[in-house]
Amino acid sequence: MRNVYVVGVGLTKVGKLYDISLRDLATEALFKSIDDAGGEMPEAIVVGNMLSSLVEQENLAALIADHAGLRGITGFKVEAACGSGGAAFLAGYSLIASGLFKKVVVLGIEKLSERPTPQTARGLAWAADADYELVYGISFSGLNALVMRYYMSKYNVSREEMASWAVLMHENAATNPYAHMRNKITVEDVIKSPLIADPIRLYDSCPLSDGAAAVMLTSRDVARKVTDTPILVAGIANSVDSPDLSSRFELDSMLAARLSAEKAFKMANISPNDIDVAEVHDAYSITGIISIEEIGFAPKGKGAKLISEGSFRPGDKPTINPSGGLKARGHPVGATGIYQIAEIAMQLRGDFPGVKVEGEYGLAQNIGGVGSNITTIILRS
Amino acid sequence: MRNVYVVGVGLTKVGKLYDISLRDLATEALFKSIDDAGGEMPEAIVVGNMLSSLVEQENLAALIADHAGLRGITGFKVEAACGSGGAAFLAGYSLIASGLFKKVVVLGIEKLSERPTPQTARGLAWAADADYELVYGISFSGLNALVMRYYMSKYNVSREEMASWAVLMHENAATNPYAHMRNKITVEDVIKSPLIADPIRLYDSCPLSDGAAAVMLTSRDVARKVTDTPILVAGIANSVDSPDLSSRFELDSMLAARLSAEKAFKMANISPNDIDVAEVHDAYSITGIISIEEIGFAPKGKGAKLISEGSFRPGDKPTINPSGGLKARGHPVGATGIYQIAEIAMQLRGDFPGVKVEGEYGLAQNIGGVGSNITTIILRS
Repeated sequence: MRNVYVVGVGLTKVGKLYDISLRDLATEALFKSIDDAGGEMPEAIVVGNMLSSLVEQENLAALIADHAGLRGITGFKVEAACGSGGAAFLAGYSLIASGLFKKVVVLGIEKLSERPTPQTARGLAWAADADYELVYGISFSGLNALVMRYYMSKYNVSREEMASWAVLMHENAATNPYAHMRNKITVEDVIKSPLIADPIRLYDSCPLSDGAAAVMLTSRDVARKVTDTPILVAGIANSVDSPDLSSRFELDSMLAARLSAEKAFKMANISPNDIDVAEVHDAYSITGIISIEEIGFAPKGKGAKLISEGSFRPGDKPTINPSGGLKARGHPVGATGIYQIAEIAMQLRGDFPGVKVEGEYGLAQNIGGVGSNITTIILRS
Repeated sequence: MRNVYVVGVGLTKVGKLYDISLRDLATEALFKSIDDAGGEMPEAIVVGNMLSSLVEQENLAALIADHAGLRGITGFKVEAACGSGGAAFLAGYSLIASGLFKKVVVLGIEKLSERPTPQTARGLAWAADADYELVYGISFSGLNALVMRYYMSKYNVSREEMASWAVLMHENAATNPYAHMRNKITVEDVIKSPLIADPIRLYDSCPLSDGAAAVMLTSRDVARKVTDTPILVAGIANSVDSPDLSSRFELDSMLAARLSAEKAFKMANISPNDIDVAEVHDAYSITGIISIEEIGFAPKGKGAKLISEGSFRPGDKPTINPSGGLKARGHPVGATGIYQIAEIAMQLRGDFPGVKVEGEYGLAQNIGGVGSNITTIILRS
C-alpha cells in the first residue's frame, strides 16, 4: 500500500456563520488547504457532510468544485452522520493509497445556522434509528442522556467529575483562534446550566456550529516536493455498530470506537501509550469520556475521574483535545472529523495556533451517531 | 494498482415497493450478492444513496450493516445525486485497489415511495443548484426540458426520432424480470403521453422507482477462489461539472460524461469501438442520447437519429441498455449505478436473465444532476 501524507490544511472559524453561504465557506477552507500545500491543485475532492439536505442542496462535490473553478476533477460526498469527516478521510486516503490519484482534498463542511435550531436538532437525530427510536419521540440528546445516566450510576461518577470535561475543553479553546467558544467556565457553571435531557445540561453538550475544514492528501513523491513537514497517515480504520441504542450490548461501551482504534494502532504498529496528542469526539462530555476509555487512554469507568483529578491537560501524554474539542472548538458536524485531523497535523508540524503539544504521534477519533460509525486516524510527524 | 473484480451481484425487483422497508430492501440485495459470491462476507460496505433524508434516516451504512448482522465492519454512504451508485463504486473500488480490504460490497438503495411524488420530485431537484436554480421555481424535469429543446432545435431532430429511445427501452425491458415497466409502447404512445415540462412528456422520462442493488468486489486472490467468471474492473473514472445549467459552455454537451469516459477508456486501454454492451443513464431520453454521443458511440447530434434508424438494438455493437435503461428498468436513484454495473457484469458472465449480449467488454455510465457528477466504468470478462 502506498504511503499517504497530509501536506496542507485549511480551516475556517467555527461558529454561527450567518453571513456566508455553504459554497463560499467550503471554498474558503479548500483554497486555504491549497495555499498551505504550496499551491498544488487537487485531482479529486471528497466532501464530508451530513445535513445539506436541510437547505435542499445535495451533489456538494460538484457544487464546491465548480465554485472553486475545478470543473472536471473527480468528486463525491461521504456521509456517516457526525462521523462524515472521518469516513470521507478514509475514502480520500484510499484514493491515494490505491494509486488512482496523487493529490486529493478531503473537505468537511456543515452549515447548520441556515435553519431554526429545532429543525437542525431533528436532522441530527437522523443519525439514530428512525423506525425504532425517533418514532417514539426521543431526541439525540435524550439518547446520549441514557448513556450518561447509566455510566454515572455504574461507575459511581459524580456530577462534579462529569463537569470537569467541559471545564478543561473551554480552558483549552481559550487560545484557539478557530474555536466557537473561547470563554472559560467553572464546574459550577456546568452544573447550573439549563437542563437539556436529564442528566445532560447545556454545558455537557457541544454547540451547533457552522464550519469548513480541508486537508490535502498526497502521495510520497508529491509530499517530498511541496513540504518539509509531511505528516504520514500511519494508521486508519473505520467501524460501524448498531444505530439503535436499545440493541447494544452495553450502554457504556462503544464497540466501533474500540475496534477502529485497535485496527488503527495495529496498522501504525504502536500502542495508546505512544500517542502524544489526541482529538476525540465529545459531542457530549459522556461521548468524549467513553471515547478515551475505548481508545485505551483511561481504564473503563475512570475517564471522568482522571480528568477531574487533572489528567490529560496540555503537556500530559496524551494531551486530550488541545483545540477545545467539540465542546468548545465547536461541532460543525460533517466537518468535525477534518478539523480534528487538521489540528493533529498542525500539532505534529508545530504550527497549531492555540495550545501546543510536542510529539511524534497524534490520534483523531471521529464518531457518528451514538457510537455507530467511528473512524480512528493516527498521524506521525 | 491491484486489480479489482466483481465476483457477486444481487438485485431486487425495481418498482413501487410500498410493502418493504429501506433496511429490508437493502439487505435483500446485500444477501443476494453474498450468496452469488459463494458466501464470502464483506469486510466493508459502501452505500450509494441520495434521498434517505426524506424519510429522516441518515447513517445508512451502520443501519444496513447492523440489520444484516455485520456490526464491526467498515462502512459509509456516498452521495453524488443520481450518480451516487457510480461514485460509491469508485470508493469501493479504491478500498480494494489500495490493499486496505479484500472484500467490499457496494450497495445502492433508494426508497422513494415512502413520500408523496411532489416531495420526492423536489428532493431530486437538490441535485441542481438550490441558490441559483431552484429558487426560481424550476423543476428537475424543467432543467432537462431546456436541454432537450436546445438539442432538437440545434440538430433538427424530430419529435418522432426522440420518441424512438423510449420505444426501444420498453422493448428491451419486456424480458427483464427486475424491470419496473415491462409493457411495450409505440412512438405514438410517447408523443401522446401527458406533457411534464415541454418538450418532455411522461414517456420521455424515467419512473420514480424503489430498488436495491449490490455488487461484491474482491482482490484477485479472493476472486480466483470464489468464482470461475470473475469480471475485471478494467477502467473507472469520475468527473464533476457545474450543477448550474446556466453556467455550462453548451447545453447539448456533457463535459463530465466525455472526460470520465475518456479516462476510463485510457485506463482500460481500449476505445468505444471495443464495447459490446453498455448501460447508460437515460433519466430522460435526452440524457441517454447525449450520454452515448459523449462516450463516443454516436457522432454529436446523431444519437436520436441512429436509434430511430434501428441502431444499438440487441445484437448490435454496442447494444445499448439491454436492461431497458432508466426509462423501463426504472431509476432507483442511488441504486441505479449499481444496477447498471451488475447488469453489465451479468452480461459478460452470460447470465443476465433478460436480453442477452455476448461480448468481452461492457460499459456503464451513471449520471448525477443534469450531467454534473458522472462515473464511467468499463468491465471485462
